Amino acid sequence: MPHSNPRRKKNLLLRLSRIEGQIRGISRMVEEEQYCVDILNQISAVRSALSSVGQILLEGHIRGCVTDAIKSDHGDESIDELMQIIKKYTL
Amino acid sequence: MPHSNPRRKKNLLLRLSRIEGQIRGISRMVEEEQYCVDILNQISAVRSALSSVGQILLEGHIRGCVTDAIKSDHGDESIDELMQIIKKYTL
Amino acid sequence: MPHSNPRRKKNLLLRLSRIEGQIRGISRMVEEEQYCVDILNQISAVRSALSSVGQILLEGHIRGCVTDAIKSDHGDESIDELMQIIKKYTL
Amino acid sequence: MPHSNPRRKKNLLLRLSRIEGQIRGISRMVEEEQYCVDILNQISAVRSALSSVGQILLEGHIRGCVTDAIKSDHGDESIDELMQIIKKYTL
Repeated sequence: MPHSNPRRKKNLLLRLSRIEGQIRGISRMVEEEQYCVDILNQISAVRSALSSVGQILLEGHIRGCVTDAIKSDHGDESIDELMQIIKKYTL
Repeated sequence: MPHSNPRRKKNLLLRLSRIEGQIRGISRMVEEEQYCVDILNQISAVRSALSSVGQILLEGHIRGCVTDAIKSDHGDESIDELMQIIKKYTL
Repeated sequence: MPHSNPRRKKNLLLRLSRIEGQIRGISRMVEEEQYCVDILNQISAVRSALSSVGQILLEGHIRGCVTDAIKSDHGDESIDELMQIIKKYTL
Repeated sequence: MPHSNPRRKKNLLLRLSRIEGQIRGISRMVEEEQYCVDILNQISAVRSALSSVGQILLEGHIRGCVTDAIKSDHGDESIDELMQIIKKYTL
């Protein structure tokens, strides 16, 4: 994140610390042998929360690094890399 | 998880504690403003790890609760609930 | 689909013929060099429509074949196969 | 697709016509009441084929329209639109 933005960074760290807490909650549910469906619903919630973090990072990356690379005529490599990430995130 | 299985439980808790560590690692990467693409790759790895946990739980649920419900002729409601989870996990 | 249901079958065939029409529409958009974003939105709509067809089939499969297999104490193999499909459909 | 590329266009149309054939094949399988799991596997194959078409279009869009918008200092709106598509394609 060379295009640092303190507010976005704080937002990301807050979201990640919430996700960490959710993971601990899931461990507790498994420990206490709670109903599988409830645990699966929690896992699905964490997956969504992680996707949001990914989208914030991806948007920052495109507005920052990719935009700079394109402006200085070095976009090709940067777009190759971007496509690799997008492929990873989509089925 | 009324169909408890100590080995599976231990396996799940181990996976979840590893995921918790990965989330902490991602927070550190954000804190240190590492390259977005590397952070995004880590997020993608955690998503896969969470999916594996979900699949283990889902399989246990189908082999346990859903199978029992079907055998005692109460499968319909259990399958309704199962379909809701599957829809949540698939695009 | 050994557990045939004429109404469900008709519903599925109608959905599939609509999807076929949507694919032809996308080909036309590509042919006419329409705006990529509009084409991508159409592709996303077809993906959702295909997922719905998949969910209807999967639900029928679980209520039919898988349920029968479980009731006649041959559930294990059937659930193995089911898990393979679910893994294919989820990330 | 204002940044037309005859080879890419031909490739896309070929892929789409193959997908159309696959959809017709799935209709036939439903018509003949073939085994659900086989039909579901075919649907999964079409979903992958559609994703590939989407990725080709998306890459072309980024290398074409988005790059041009960024170079002429109108990237913001274009990236907003891009993020909307990416969100649609990722879970």
